[in-house]
Amino acid sequence: MHSHLFNFDAKKSEIGSLVAIQSPESIPFDIQRVYYIYGVDSKKYRRGFHAHRDLEQVLICVKGSLKVLVKTPKEEIIYSLSSPDKGLFIGKMIWREMFEFSKDAVLLVLASKKYDEGDYYREYSDFENAFFSKGNNL
Amino acid sequence: MHSHLFNFDAKKSEIGSLVAIQSPESIPFDIQRVYYIYGVDSKKYRRGFHAHRDLEQVLICVKGSLKVLVKTPKEEIIYSLSSPDKGLFIGKMIWREMFEFSKDAVLLVLASKKYDEGDYYREYSDFENAFFSKGNNL
Repeated sequence: MHSHLFNFDAKKSEIGSLVAIQSPESIPFDIQRVYYIYGVDSKKYRRGFHAHRDLEQVLICVKGSLKVLVKTPKEEIIYSLSSPDKGLFIGKMIWREMFEFSKDAVLLVLASKKYDEGDYYREYSDFENAFFSKGNNL
Repeated sequence: MHSHLFNFDAKKSEIGSLVAIQSPESIPFDIQRVYYIYGVDSKKYRRGFHAHRDLEQVLICVKGSLKVLVKTPKEEIIYSLSSPDKGLFIGKMIWREMFEFSKDAVLLVLASKKYDEGDYYREYSDFENAFFSKGNNL
């Protein structure tokens, strides 16, 4: 499963911190879409619940904290995100769920493709079938 | 001066809010660089102090609040940003300063070009000279 945490090089000074991201220096794809999630008022809410056929993403918790479950039929990993200078790369064919958002959490996501509903698996069973039909070397 | 505030279409639900941004639907340029500023611990700090020859940007205050001064030799405007669903477009040849950051502020910036030091005016007097030499219809 192609997911991993990595560090951004934050420029820190007395007037604050700045993280700059561009391809290919800081991330492995051109940024085609940006989205951010905020205002998740309860730790009981979970979001995500999908996988992508081809799209890759980098998730950054720019404020607060949250957890991300990444999962295939073969393995699962839970990442804790709580720092603006950490990125979580999630490759294609990986199911993801985000949870335990702190009230102040802001999750920034950079994506390698524009929105395309056909790129989503929204049912885990569909993802599982596709995962095995593509071979289990993902 | 080409700067203006605009609204993003936030998808709001009980599990939180999501703003998705891609060109050309939500912003007028392809995103070549993303950066974010955080941890500005005092309202006395100002940042920015530059203009760009060609680069365009959209500034989004995804958490907290801050102000942005945009300025040419002919006019100046102060924008207050305090909402993740508001974007501030800043065109080329505009001096900008960001200030009055709340302690929790996170400023997300989407840029139309990759980093190029040659695109910056870092001295106001240089910017002013260039502004007038390019004509005053900017």
